[in-house]
Amino acid sequence: MKMNVLHWHLTEDQGFRVETKKFPELHLQGSDGNFYTQNEIREIINYAANRGIRVVPEFDMPGHATAWVVSHPEIASGKPGETYTIERRPGIFDPTLDPTNEKTYKLLEGFFAEMTQLFPDKYMHIGGDENEGKQWDANQKIQAFMKEKGIKNNHELQTYFNKRILKFLQKGGKIMMGWDEIFQPDLPKEVVIHSWRGQKALAEAAKLGFQGVLSNGFYIDLAFPASQHYVTDPIPVDTTLTAEEQKRILGGEATMWSEWVSPETIDSRVWTRAPAVAERLWSPRDVTNIDDMYRRMETIGNQLEELGLTHRKNQTMMLRRLANNQDISALQTLVSVIEPIKEYRRYQQRPQIMLDPLTGLIDASQPDAKGAREFNKMVAAMISKNDFSTDSEKLKMIFTGWRDAGSELENVMQNAPALHEAKQLALDLKTLGEIGLEAMEFLGTDKTPVAEWRSAKLKSLDEIAKPKAALEFMVVESLKKLVNASVEKRSTAKN
Amino acid sequence: MKMNVLHWHLTEDQGFRVETKKFPELHLQGSDGNFYTQNEIREIINYAANRGIRVVPEFDMPGHATAWVVSHPEIASGKPGETYTIERRPGIFDPTLDPTNEKTYKLLEGFFAEMTQLFPDKYMHIGGDENEGKQWDANQKIQAFMKEKGIKNNHELQTYFNKRILKFLQKGGKIMMGWDEIFQPDLPKEVVIHSWRGQKALAEAAKLGFQGVLSNGFYIDLAFPASQHYVTDPIPVDTTLTAEEQKRILGGEATMWSEWVSPETIDSRVWTRAPAVAERLWSPRDVTNIDDMYRRMETIGNQLEELGLTHRKNQTMMLRRLANNQDISALQTLVSVIEPIKEYRRYQQRPQIMLDPLTGLIDASQPDAKGAREFNKMVAAMISKNDFSTDSEKLKMIFTGWRDAGSELENVMQNAPALHEAKQLALDLKTLGEIGLEAMEFLGTDKTPVAEWRSAKLKSLDEIAKPKAALEFMVVESLKKLVNASVEKRSTAKN
Repeated sequence: MKMNVLHWHLTEDQGFRVETKKFPELHLQGSDGNFYTQNEIREIINYAANRGIRVVPEFDMPGHATAWVVSHPEIASGKPGETYTIERRPGIFDPTLDPTNEKTYKLLEGFFAEMTQLFPDKYMHIGGDENEGKQWDANQKIQAFMKEKGIKNNHELQTYFNKRILKFLQKGGKIMMGWDEIFQPDLPKEVVIHSWRGQKALAEAAKLGFQGVLSNGFYIDLAFPASQHYVTDPIPVDTTLTAEEQKRILGGEATMWSEWVSPETIDSRVWTRAPAVAERLWSPRDVTNIDDMYRRMETIGNQLEELGLTHRKNQTMMLRRLANNQDISALQTLVSVIEPIKEYRRYQQRPQIMLDPLTGLIDASQPDAKGAREFNKMVAAMISKNDFSTDSEKLKMIFTGWRDAGSELENVMQNAPALHEAKQLALDLKTLGEIGLEAMEFLGTDKTPVAEWRSAKLKSLDEIAKPKAALEFMVVESLKKLVNASVEKRSTAKN
Repeated sequence: MKMNVLHWHLTEDQGFRVETKKFPELHLQGSDGNFYTQNEIREIINYAANRGIRVVPEFDMPGHATAWVVSHPEIASGKPGETYTIERRPGIFDPTLDPTNEKTYKLLEGFFAEMTQLFPDKYMHIGGDENEGKQWDANQKIQAFMKEKGIKNNHELQTYFNKRILKFLQKGGKIMMGWDEIFQPDLPKEVVIHSWRGQKALAEAAKLGFQGVLSNGFYIDLAFPASQHYVTDPIPVDTTLTAEEQKRILGGEATMWSEWVSPETIDSRVWTRAPAVAERLWSPRDVTNIDDMYRRMETIGNQLEELGLTHRKNQTMMLRRLANNQDISALQTLVSVIEPIKEYRRYQQRPQIMLDPLTGLIDASQPDAKGAREFNKMVAAMISKNDFSTDSEKLKMIFTGWRDAGSELENVMQNAPALHEAKQLALDLKTLGEIGLEAMEFLGTDKTPVAEWRSAKLKSLDEIAKPKAALEFMVVESLKKLVNASVEKRSTAKN
């Protein structure tokens, strides 16, 4: 794929994943034992280096720091004597390092002395994102410190912190990299801004002389289709940057946060869309043929699987387990048209903690569901050509397939407890098939639906469009278009 | 699976797979570099031991010995000065160790001194199979030796050889094990006979006091269905052995020769039937419900896959590659009713050498094709109940599926060169579907076929039954029954 940097996020509220020899309490108390030893890290760095890939580690601070303060509560910004445990939920949490405490810097100085040795790359990432400053606001000692030093707000306080950290990195020969939030015009110009906010933020930094990397638009953990990532460019067509400023935009990163992945599912979350990001980053801006991207993605996906990746293979395995060893063809029809809910809404819709198994239908389902994509493409062509007959048999077969799979799933689910959360999805799949067949009936004949038909079907489709079990049907909009077309056919028909 | 011995066949005409420190030329010249280092072997032995599994190595001699004599032609029984290269074809070959040459024993004494140290198990297997003695017959020196010693035939000469080898094994504290051919009544009674010939051979040895292990009936490399292995018992119901003699039958072995497996396919050759052998060997003789075995096999197969085996996953991957990244559903229909040719006929039908890639349709196809098994079961029930209406819709759908997949495959193959060898199979699949639909038409109505219909269809089915691309349709016999039933329905109908 020619992706040449592994940005490795190693500390978080939910875990401290790197072994430290100087402060072993950090990984031992902060990781449930799930950390990389320094030997393993060296092995990964070498493995990557042999393939022309650099490894940039991230130690996220001062926020996202719960795992740090499990063993070192004295450097947190909370109440004196407050203790912390490893966070089990996803989200943004309060525990934040105390930038006014010299003990914080003592620990970090030792830590970075060790890490700048362990990781040979020139860059080191300090995170810096999503510090909401709640502990800072509530801490009188910190407030007094800010007053004394003339620090006006939390952003300035974080900058004070960053500048102290910068010294530790520079001592180890590293260039500092961090998320948008670290940006501050008077930082040294060598600092690299990593933008989750977008091209605009990146362009602003570039204008002030800072280099940057774009992640916004490339968050492959959000379950968006490859097509969406494919048309995002770190330097958009309407950029106002000069040629020199544009050079400061170093590239982009496919960002894969791992709250909801397991060894079984990680490949399906990464390799279904990452190749599109890679191609974007290595291609001229005017390479934007989405159909052709998907055509090639199909082949690339097969080749990656032959190399040992599991984005396709594991899906059938997981479906067989969900179906309790019954036939999975109906379930395959369902997952061909549903996708995991987009953005970070999974936890709200289907709460689990970090220790729960990831073996549900949402885990077996994948972004960019192929059946839905092909269906949507077919319907779009029909509508645009106003030709509902050429492909009508194909479409009827698809609808019949949905209807029958929906019925069959009701049987399968009787003996498959793990699928009970998806009962409504099975009913919906059946309804989708039925609505489609009705629409085709009207589109293929002179018959016209009664007045109430359209509103009833559209209402039904609105219900179906609502996520269930944190999964959504990706075919509803196209079906609405067919419903509308089957009413309006006379007015739009060519002859 | 409770299988508790790994019998590891380490030397063959096609390769010498174990590292020797004393005679490194053996593995270096005899293996193309594909050998297990002693460290790897120790790792495997420990891995197995931690799971309660013993490792019994086999060094096959005096036949199947080409890889030995690549580096040591002086101990072969061929013409003086003859040289040897690693064999690339499967089969039985001439190169045989010279049992009349003291150099042979010198090498083997050193070799076994090393191997009896490397492998901790009490048993060591010396093969001994399929020595056709051609080099012995043609070698005047060997003939003279036999005359001088009063050795009457090749079997006696091999026994002379075995007795000399036995001393090396005993010196290393090992009990000798070998295939049927090593059996000779005056061998020490501790020698274990490993039978590829069958229960009768094993019983004869047991009567003379020898212990034995059965492999005949459990050759899972022959592509036979699990049902066949499942009903084979090392001690058959009609055994004439006494209780004491029966105790000498130690158990059985699922034998997996590896001429035609690759890392991609090995699991599909082993784990599709091995669980049935395992259950047989750990079950009372009267546990013989085949339908129930297949029901459980389905679940076990899924569980094994969740543990990381690839017998199911890799099939779709291989089909996608064969289809040149086109849709594989038609191909999946085909592989659901075809199987690799049985026994050792693959090489004749579809010659390849050992270095060729194993990526053909035969490699993606698997024994015990599920679609065929289910179809055959359904037809058998119809015939036995003389009821062709209850399941007729299901059956029509199956036939329609075959017919349509056959047509679709013709399109797919136009852009999939690797499938061209299977063009006739696609046509045959279509014909099978058409014949089935015609038969159902007669079975479902009062219509009777014209006289020529039956003979024409049966003739067509005979053609289809012939293997192509080393693959066979497993549904032909059932379809013949349906054709016959559709003609004879009046005479056999219940009312």
